[in-house]
Amino acid sequence: MRIVVVGSGSWGTALANLLAGRGHDTTLLARDPACAAAIEHRHQNPRYLPDVWLDQRLRAADLTLGIPGDADLVVLAIPSRAFAETIATVEIPPAAAILSLTKGLEPGTGRRLSQVAGARLGDPARIAVLSGPNHAEEVARGTPAATVIASSPIDLAVHLRDAISSDHFRVYANADVTGVELAGAAKNVIAVAAGVSDGLGLGDNAKAALITRGLAEMTRLGQSFGADPRTFAGLAGLGDLVATCCSRHSRNRRAGELLAEGIPAEAIETRIGMVAEGLTTAPTLQRVAQDRGLELPITERVCALLAGEDPREAVSRLMAREPNTEY
Amino acid sequence: MRIVVVGSGSWGTALANLLAGRGHDTTLLARDPACAAAIEHRHQNPRYLPDVWLDQRLRAADLTLGIPGDADLVVLAIPSRAFAETIATVEIPPAAAILSLTKGLEPGTGRRLSQVAGARLGDPARIAVLSGPNHAEEVARGTPAATVIASSPIDLAVHLRDAISSDHFRVYANADVTGVELAGAAKNVIAVAAGVSDGLGLGDNAKAALITRGLAEMTRLGQSFGADPRTFAGLAGLGDLVATCCSRHSRNRRAGELLAEGIPAEAIETRIGMVAEGLTTAPTLQRVAQDRGLELPITERVCALLAGEDPREAVSRLMAREPNTEY
Repeated sequence: MRIVVVGSGSWGTALANLLAGRGHDTTLLARDPACAAAIEHRHQNPRYLPDVWLDQRLRAADLTLGIPGDADLVVLAIPSRAFAETIATVEIPPAAAILSLTKGLEPGTGRRLSQVAGARLGDPARIAVLSGPNHAEEVARGTPAATVIASSPIDLAVHLRDAISSDHFRVYANADVTGVELAGAAKNVIAVAAGVSDGLGLGDNAKAALITRGLAEMTRLGQSFGADPRTFAGLAGLGDLVATCCSRHSRNRRAGELLAEGIPAEAIETRIGMVAEGLTTAPTLQRVAQDRGLELPITERVCALLAGEDPREAVSRLMAREPNTEY
Repeated sequence: MRIVVVGSGSWGTALANLLAGRGHDTTLLARDPACAAAIEHRHQNPRYLPDVWLDQRLRAADLTLGIPGDADLVVLAIPSRAFAETIATVEIPPAAAILSLTKGLEPGTGRRLSQVAGARLGDPARIAVLSGPNHAEEVARGTPAATVIASSPIDLAVHLRDAISSDHFRVYANADVTGVELAGAAKNVIAVAAGVSDGLGLGDNAKAALITRGLAEMTRLGQSFGADPRTFAGLAGLGDLVATCCSRHSRNRRAGELLAEGIPAEAIETRIGMVAEGLTTAPTLQRVAQDRGLELPITERVCALLAGEDPREAVSRLMAREPNTEY
């Protein structure tokens, strides 16, 4: 396949590298010309994946050059807040499919990003989403990982699964686009809460309970949108939630740790040096839930924290509201 | 309540300490007289919880003295392989309820431990089980945790929940004894596999995928015994699985790391200095599953590892047999 990956953050770069290694003619388009040059000539992304030598077959170019008209697949690996603008300004070749890697919602409207892309292209069947427990640093190093690609109908997902899957990177096809996207967005918010718990030194027991409640909260959210609860029990749900809440690689967990230290919300992404989608997603998700009369207790507390609530107060309010029966 | 805790390992000690702190007249019975003396006089369990000062109200005595006839509740915190013998030899007062903390199955028969106790007492309604993400070291230090107590009918569990629950240790009542016990037994086996994955340096993505597949395997096992799948999505299932697979406190995870290093199975508990139930449970669980024609791929590979299979071979066989659809 002729593949163009838009976005040279750590995940865009790692997946582009994997696609090139899989034999696909792959070009990474970067907003930063210096980054494009470093990947093209030195096979390195010094800012986002400094320790990895990239596949020599991976090409890179400046995003302003646009997407070649003969691309079969456009992979979007951009922050949620840049998604709508990018899809509106970049020319997508009429025959190309889109694969979104972005885990978030459109800020303001709360639309899923495949909906944003679908509205622009006018053909939702050309759009797939990828989500799963995939820390870029590890995928780039070639340790084993698995993920989910979803499209509706499932045909595009099956096609992409066969084109992308390898011994080290197992892809599962799924028709539940709604579930995969909502899981990917919501788990980042739970991970911020997990980071707060870690930052306060509450231990592994408390975090395990939080993850359990978090998955229940995510599943409830998904079901209210008609998603399949099994998606939430799978790699894009539970799998990604565990990876994001427990790994030292997780930026959203790290964002929570910094919140617990009293760093103000607006200073956190600068401190991390990368986007932490959970910080953007939390208020959007809360609005979406309120519109549907849905209670998301963990998301609510993360929003309160972002608005300045004391971390210990947030945690004790969360504990206090726990019900007496599990289900 | 008048409570006797049998077993002075880390979890028996931590829960006895919590019960004493909750105002219950609590005595810990230890097999080792020196341990009983240390708890009784120095308020310390030097072998299993060396860094914790225990509640001064917690009493301790030698197990050979037997259980006082006026006990309301006997808590059993003993390894699964000593469970049947203990319940057969210790005199349980006729009015006392039993609460089992043991996470395992009876080796050989594969019976759940509440079944073993029920056969001895002749009254299953007097038996409850407790299971959840509860690393003893953390509970003893008073960081927040939550757990599940199950009995059938649920009345005893509700009674115990109200007697044990506190701000820091939230208890949920559940009527699914089968599910809670099978989850507690099976998660230790998955945690051994998670430790092998860590020991081989496979990273957080691979472990998250393993945990996801592991929960599916546990849930399938439970459902074949008529357990409620929601138990597996709750604290005793997902919660404990995550805590056991991800925490540095977990002995079963540590056992897997040692297996990955090539330490023979029979030498591992000596190295850890504590029982790692997953090592005993794996072959028992595999036999139980075979009897029912049930496939437990992860448990199977752990058994092969315990029988000497090369860890890398076990992992690649596990990856190779993965299906192409998630559910």
